[in-house]
Amino acid sequence: MSARAGIVVTGTEVLTGRVRDRNGPWLADRLLEQGIELAHITICGDRPEDMEAQLRFMAARGMDIVITSGGLGPTADDLTTEVVARFCGRPMVLDERLEARIAEILAPLMKRWPNVDPETIRVANRKQATIPEGATVIDPVGTAPGVVVPPADGVEGPTVVVLPGPPRELHAMWPVAVGTNAFGAASRGAEHYEQRMLRLFGIPESEIAETLRVAEPELPGFERLEITTCLRRGEVEVVVRYDEEGASAWEGLRDAIASRHAGTLFSTDGSLVDDQVAALLAGRRMAVAESCTGGLMAARLTERPGASAYFAGGVVSYADEAKAGLLDVDPALIARHGAVSPEVADAMAHGALARFGADTALAITGVAGPDGGTQAKPVGYVCWSARLADGSVLARDTTLPGDRGEIRDRSTTVAMHMLRRLLRGEELPV
Amino acid sequence: MSARAGIVVTGTEVLTGRVRDRNGPWLADRLLEQGIELAHITICGDRPEDMEAQLRFMAARGMDIVITSGGLGPTADDLTTEVVARFCGRPMVLDERLEARIAEILAPLMKRWPNVDPETIRVANRKQATIPEGATVIDPVGTAPGVVVPPADGVEGPTVVVLPGPPRELHAMWPVAVGTNAFGAASRGAEHYEQRMLRLFGIPESEIAETLRVAEPELPGFERLEITTCLRRGEVEVVVRYDEEGASAWEGLRDAIASRHAGTLFSTDGSLVDDQVAALLAGRRMAVAESCTGGLMAARLTERPGASAYFAGGVVSYADEAKAGLLDVDPALIARHGAVSPEVADAMAHGALARFGADTALAITGVAGPDGGTQAKPVGYVCWSARLADGSVLARDTTLPGDRGEIRDRSTTVAMHMLRRLLRGEELPV
Repeated sequence: MSARAGIVVTGTEVLTGRVRDRNGPWLADRLLEQGIELAHITICGDRPEDMEAQLRFMAARGMDIVITSGGLGPTADDLTTEVVARFCGRPMVLDERLEARIAEILAPLMKRWPNVDPETIRVANRKQATIPEGATVIDPVGTAPGVVVPPADGVEGPTVVVLPGPPRELHAMWPVAVGTNAFGAASRGAEHYEQRMLRLFGIPESEIAETLRVAEPELPGFERLEITTCLRRGEVEVVVRYDEEGASAWEGLRDAIASRHAGTLFSTDGSLVDDQVAALLAGRRMAVAESCTGGLMAARLTERPGASAYFAGGVVSYADEAKAGLLDVDPALIARHGAVSPEVADAMAHGALARFGADTALAITGVAGPDGGTQAKPVGYVCWSARLADGSVLARDTTLPGDRGEIRDRSTTVAMHMLRRLLRGEELPV
Repeated sequence: MSARAGIVVTGTEVLTGRVRDRNGPWLADRLLEQGIELAHITICGDRPEDMEAQLRFMAARGMDIVITSGGLGPTADDLTTEVVARFCGRPMVLDERLEARIAEILAPLMKRWPNVDPETIRVANRKQATIPEGATVIDPVGTAPGVVVPPADGVEGPTVVVLPGPPRELHAMWPVAVGTNAFGAASRGAEHYEQRMLRLFGIPESEIAETLRVAEPELPGFERLEITTCLRRGEVEVVVRYDEEGASAWEGLRDAIASRHAGTLFSTDGSLVDDQVAALLAGRRMAVAESCTGGLMAARLTERPGASAYFAGGVVSYADEAKAGLLDVDPALIARHGAVSPEVADAMAHGALARFGADTALAITGVAGPDGGTQAKPVGYVCWSARLADGSVLARDTTLPGDRGEIRDRSTTVAMHMLRRLLRGEELPV
């Protein structure tokens, strides 16, 4: 049987949603790489009894490994290490090497905040250097050390990997945690799993459900596949997990979906539309003209390292005068068709090509709401134009569902798919 | 004793992090409004035994109410209602009124997807209209209905509120769920809690810890306050919860922090810096010039409804030629100081004022990385200029920690605080 793991995220700020947990998702992928199955994520506040109850739940459900994130800071509500020590049946002891190491890390920070009381820092340092006896220390990347804590002799339960909350620190400390003997012992029996992903755009999720229903009786080995479908940012994702013997069933399913949904399947190798567009833009010079998305399209295109090789820039033309002044949109065109119209979107794309000396341009104008909708152009009505310097163009207008945030986000997804088709020389589907 | 609640989020796509849970945080706030204390959030995949284990955990911890989100879709892996029915000891029955209602909702959708097989839709409809006997139906906002399910006679446990995963649907259905008799009965004994928030920018979290340590023995009623501190997007948030008798201790703490941290405390009423900047921009005309943030600054300023009243637009000048061509930055200035320099940032701000006919401008240029850093200007080095048409200006340059995404995001937070100070006529702190 494969090793199973749980994640316990601590912190009232995460429980109450003021801070979004980014560690659970990241750790889920890392566990999969190790062949360890993630079964449960739990989130609790800073009350030790709630945290202990969640650890006991993980033990009762037979988890081999539990990873905690958060609660390692210098303040009194940071109690994770103490709670884990008790859960694993180990007393807390001061690790003097670790105390010295943390002092070393804090020295330059103390110069940066000259008004901070040194005694405050020393108290915090000592707290962070006090760890469960027999635990393996993971040296801090920020100021908080992690620990890997196996259950004490005579205690039944999982090995607990205690990591800090800040993602950058947790990411850097994870490989060290995985390399410890305690982690290796707890994850024995991990099996190799493959995970594959198909992505489709422009069909409802129920269509995929139907394809799976049809494939089930026809495809040998279908029962070896663990299939999940979900909607994300307007795309349908089909995730398939399988062990070694499921490989040919996976190939059969992939081919069935590819033939049944040829027009909408755009990714079979895990790539996002953003990855594909970035690759297609290599050697090109891209510019954006956007209104309702307010900068989100440019931000999405520059998210990836190296975007400066192909991204020249963008204009956020929120006001009509900006459409005229910075993108040369004829004010008469705006007066005739309205700022949100296919005509103005296309004029914006022309303007972006010219002003940035670009060979590829994308323009978006729409009604993000909640105000500004009319009967003819309701909230959610958006127009796009994707245009190359050689005159190729794809244009679309439609009404998107959702609130202001969803309309803005969805508009960038539609734009990405138009750009992908344009750069591949394809037409839009009917 | 106050009513306690737990949230069970289901779906392999959430467990594995492909979809981010936005319902937990939203429900946390709604529960607080009802005076119900949120103690646990758990996330599981689509395996019924894991979901059942989490429901049993909630029951064992004495939760009065459990809210589930997700798993109500038409596909075979959507099992929440069935699992909850079993947990509450109630058989599943077809609700014919509900079946008719869903058919009504699907009619226009079926016109939009003319190639979808009607029988597929009917099967999905019947599945979604089959609910636990004795449950109160919450009519669908999308296509999935919710249910409020009290435990059957003779069964001990919480009342379970079953809601769909899509946030827009869940939001609209929540008030209906709260209004049901079953919900009212389960939440009896809810007490009134106040929650207040202080926000500070520009100090380390440990300084707040020290202030709390000093306040504890001096402030009568300190022990009535439940205090959480956390770092979010570079700001320190102090959240204080208290019941009626804690009100004066809260005021004492607020005043102590206000006097000790006058230079860095910027919000005592729950407002975000974004809210404050939006209010300060009323009647003004704002433009943005940004490079490393690639559109994020404009996107952040246009996130709020009504931004078009004060936001004219922005230029994302990623390429140097765009800085010259669209913002009139002298290429000789770029050659002399480099594209990432205080001089170029200020020239970009001047350009934004002029090109958009704005009275308020903000410019950002920096090295977001991972490439492009030098010894003098490493990855994370960012320059800002905030400038008014009347000649007032605040400028700053510093090196931010973190990866590409964090540097880009943090740059917009620093910019927001500069803008706030500029518009309030304040200087930057030393």
